[in-house]
Amino acid sequence: MSNTSHAHSHDLEEGLALTPKFDAAGLVTVVTTDVANGDVLMVAHMNEEALRNTIETGDAWYYSRSRKALWRKGESSGKTQRVVEMRMDCDQDAIWIKVEQVGGAACHTGRRSCFYRAITKGEAGAAKVSFIDADKVFDPASVYKS
Amino acid sequence: MSNTSHAHSHDLEEGLALTPKFDAAGLVTVVTTDVANGDVLMVAHMNEEALRNTIETGDAWYYSRSRKALWRKGESSGKTQRVVEMRMDCDQDAIWIKVEQVGGAACHTGRRSCFYRAITKGEAGAAKVSFIDADKVFDPASVYKS
Repeated sequence: MSNTSHAHSHDLEEGLALTPKFDAAGLVTVVTTDVANGDVLMVAHMNEEALRNTIETGDAWYYSRSRKALWRKGESSGKTQRVVEMRMDCDQDAIWIKVEQVGGAACHTGRRSCFYRAITKGEAGAAKVSFIDADKVFDPASVYKS
Repeated sequence: MSNTSHAHSHDLEEGLALTPKFDAAGLVTVVTTDVANGDVLMVAHMNEEALRNTIETGDAWYYSRSRKALWRKGESSGKTQRVVEMRMDCDQDAIWIKVEQVGGAACHTGRRSCFYRAITKGEAGAAKVSFIDADKVFDPASVYKS
């Protein structure tokens, strides 16, 4: 956060203790970028166990809010993420990991990144959405068997 | 999200309508990166009004959860953010903006990025935290008058 008008904790911001501020659901937000080009691949969440597993193994683990389950990225698709660098933010409620994306695609839609649509200002100030970097690296139907 | 084992909405993922999935508090998560080098500057939130203002004005607006207020980034510090590109993710609950960071610092601690601490694996697998890119661009005490 870049918040200015409330009290900040000096220890939280300037300390070298890992004291994540998990939310009411026990999660912190995670931003995952591609170490090859800096692009944001996905935004997801980690609970305490996912964070610990990620630090210990060097593979990206998340917590799926919809499935309510710990999840090693790529465990079903094979498209794992190798963590090259991990950082935390000033108030310790967000994590940034730079990863090597195995298989070249992070998104379940088959695309490299989950961010494959741009928002621009259209007619009369209304929002306009268009595809950008939206080529599919793989066919989801052939990767995810149900 | 890169979630695989639940139903996905085709319209939400493949459509060109901007239909953000605001959470219970009316917010979406925003990742802000520096267009100059791709670094993640901050993770914050937008409500509907902040999103609309950002699209319309080209400046980054957020919603502060702690202050419970709409907030134009830099309105007190002068360190505004000019949006160069804006994207949304597959399930439309996260936004990625690439910005030109005016004044060279996004973090209220005076640093360029809020992510100025690295997490690594220390002794016996425990987490180790260390400063990285942690030089202060400005002195917060001289910028934020209370």
